[in-house]
Amino acid sequence: MMLAHQISVGNELLLGDTINTNASWISQRLSEHGIRCVHVATVPDDKPAILSALAHSMRDADVTILTGGLGPTHDDITKTCLCEYFNARLVCHKPTLDRIQRMFEARGIPFSPSNTAQADVPEHCDVLFNSQGTAPGMWFAEKGKVLIVLPGVPREMKHLMTDEVLPRLRAMVGASKLNKDYLQLTGIGESTLSDLVIGDVSSYLKPGIELAYLPHAHGITLRITSFNGLVEDAARLKSHILSAAGPYVYSELPDVDLEQVVVQLASEKKVSIATAESCTGGWISNLITNVPGSSTMFKGSIVAYHNSVKQHLLDVPESVLMEYGAVSKQVALIMAKSAASKLGADIGISTTGIAGPDGGTEAKPVGLVWIGFWSRDTHFAVYARFFRDRILNKERTAKVALEIIRRQMLGIPGLPFDLKPESA
Amino acid sequence: MMLAHQISVGNELLLGDTINTNASWISQRLSEHGIRCVHVATVPDDKPAILSALAHSMRDADVTILTGGLGPTHDDITKTCLCEYFNARLVCHKPTLDRIQRMFEARGIPFSPSNTAQADVPEHCDVLFNSQGTAPGMWFAEKGKVLIVLPGVPREMKHLMTDEVLPRLRAMVGASKLNKDYLQLTGIGESTLSDLVIGDVSSYLKPGIELAYLPHAHGITLRITSFNGLVEDAARLKSHILSAAGPYVYSELPDVDLEQVVVQLASEKKVSIATAESCTGGWISNLITNVPGSSTMFKGSIVAYHNSVKQHLLDVPESVLMEYGAVSKQVALIMAKSAASKLGADIGISTTGIAGPDGGTEAKPVGLVWIGFWSRDTHFAVYARFFRDRILNKERTAKVALEIIRRQMLGIPGLPFDLKPESA
Repeated sequence: MMLAHQISVGNELLLGDTINTNASWISQRLSEHGIRCVHVATVPDDKPAILSALAHSMRDADVTILTGGLGPTHDDITKTCLCEYFNARLVCHKPTLDRIQRMFEARGIPFSPSNTAQADVPEHCDVLFNSQGTAPGMWFAEKGKVLIVLPGVPREMKHLMTDEVLPRLRAMVGASKLNKDYLQLTGIGESTLSDLVIGDVSSYLKPGIELAYLPHAHGITLRITSFNGLVEDAARLKSHILSAAGPYVYSELPDVDLEQVVVQLASEKKVSIATAESCTGGWISNLITNVPGSSTMFKGSIVAYHNSVKQHLLDVPESVLMEYGAVSKQVALIMAKSAASKLGADIGISTTGIAGPDGGTEAKPVGLVWIGFWSRDTHFAVYARFFRDRILNKERTAKVALEIIRRQMLGIPGLPFDLKPESA
Repeated sequence: MMLAHQISVGNELLLGDTINTNASWISQRLSEHGIRCVHVATVPDDKPAILSALAHSMRDADVTILTGGLGPTHDDITKTCLCEYFNARLVCHKPTLDRIQRMFEARGIPFSPSNTAQADVPEHCDVLFNSQGTAPGMWFAEKGKVLIVLPGVPREMKHLMTDEVLPRLRAMVGASKLNKDYLQLTGIGESTLSDLVIGDVSSYLKPGIELAYLPHAHGITLRITSFNGLVEDAARLKSHILSAAGPYVYSELPDVDLEQVVVQLASEKKVSIATAESCTGGWISNLITNVPGSSTMFKGSIVAYHNSVKQHLLDVPESVLMEYGAVSKQVALIMAKSAASKLGADIGISTTGIAGPDGGTEAKPVGLVWIGFWSRDTHFAVYARFFRDRILNKERTAKVALEIIRRQMLGIPGLPFDLKPESA
């Protein structure tokens, strides 16, 4: 098996201001490709430290991935160290320089000498063209070993890893021998899912087949891994889970979000959606509009944070606000209906709740949320009890709202977390 | 200055399943005590790897902190490695054993041999009593060097660091000697800031004073660190930066977001804000409502994703949409004004742009955004050119919009990124 080392360069990592998330992301990608990362050295922007880490990794690892220290300021010295290590000089990479110049011109930003230096790379390296930033990636091959150098900005690093580095590494190690199947679920807790819904799966497991529960803020991802021709056994396990927990599964792909599923379904079914948000403050609308193509099915949102907006733009009568309060079934139902009618959508969804951390009462504690749903055929509201954390409450509320929409569009009976629908 | 190394032990760290947050937390605590962490090695639960990292760190560092591999399962081999490294044998630490036994009794859990082994430590070490878990911490002193071994569970590690390790380290190094000053800036690029605005600061720097540029997605954080009574020199550097780049500085605290500053300013000045968002899709509204207390100054938002919503809820005439298009100065200006009037706010801010990744034309490419601002005294719109990335375009647009509001509320002349205001 091919062994990899990582070198993470940056004073900010050693002062603790920045958490080294790059290292774990890279490790995950490597392990998916059958390459095992066995060492991560985090070193400062300091020449002896970088050179010593390079020597160590180039001796012990087949592949070394170094990130960071490629920026335009005086403390970025990774390229200087590479020149010394390889006894090379810096040369200008013309396509990168052209791109940087065009970028600056297009935005009308003055071009300074440190920007020119961004396009310099040590001679003899393969340049990995960075279409997301100014610092090019580099690929060095020496005596059967490979050194890959990437910018430390996570977005740029991920782009270069995905588009440039992993395809080359795949070609080096041959086809991956590990198969992974994913099921993404929402609207159910981990222990309920494993104990009551999926149940005992030991008869499906054997050496070479694993089932992992990966709970995260917005649901649970199940990962089935299978090695070396156990694909059919993995398929049997997957089919068992699908028949037991099907209604909760919103995707069989690892990287698809619930909002993507909702946008795709609504586009296919030509259903338009609008939201009226109080406690979520635009978060649902934001999630939906993060999805490319959402403009075909999403009309928009009225974020009615202040009660006057609920009255004037969503036609919630003052008397209803007075009698039931803004966080109530009655207000949620009117908001959902008005979202659909005012914004001209087939489905209206609404949220109103106590986001926290303050503002709760005994009758309406922090974390209490009403979610309203309106379509021509159905309308109801549900309440849920979430947490003391404001951001978490927004996220959970949005995911439940999106899951309600998904189930309604597909005609799946029941609601996430077994919430009970209430009508007016 | 005392130099520290860290060794993080654990396969899960190298598979990428667990992000190494311990390392940055420990680094921060060390730097606050004037101890500089200059190396973090992340190694697997593997004897040669642990022994090699130990040898390296005990040679180069004054203080080494090793975390992880102290659990009760077969893959936890840190103590075995320590015995081999120090040529010591394991002895039972009676107070720890008593505590574990009491703990198990109290919870009615059966006591197994692997639990007894938890109380074993290499002879000659000082035991750091762990009141939060079963694995004791250890303190080894050898030839003027110190090795500290802690469990990898973050809660237990933090407890032992805070209650046991840091008081001892403080006694070794004397009172805390490191000061950190932060300046958070937005609305300017890193190279423009460093080359053209702040300029050469070498006359302010000397051993013990450092200036670091920490660029991130939403701006740049400048960190000035100063050691050993160089506080006045640091203040001179900070004052130079403030006088050169003052308008860009939105906070002098490291953890404050721009939206928090906007909410606080608006609350103090009793200014209410509303948004009309197209390309940002509710992201600005979401950022503002993430801040506790935003309900006092934020009225809400109309997310006008579909043009019909721009017409019916924001009074953008169809003729204007036809003549200039939805992504135009004219539409941005009307949207901003309608946001304020329809939602009853003092300030209205609007966004309309081509978020991407598709939908651009030659005249209106992906990444083109118009931002409108309306208050009783001033109204204008600006356009910016951002990226091909949809999410990034939303984030950048929102930050520019928030920064425009901040500058307007404070009466700071000029706009972020030197954008030029255009009127109707």
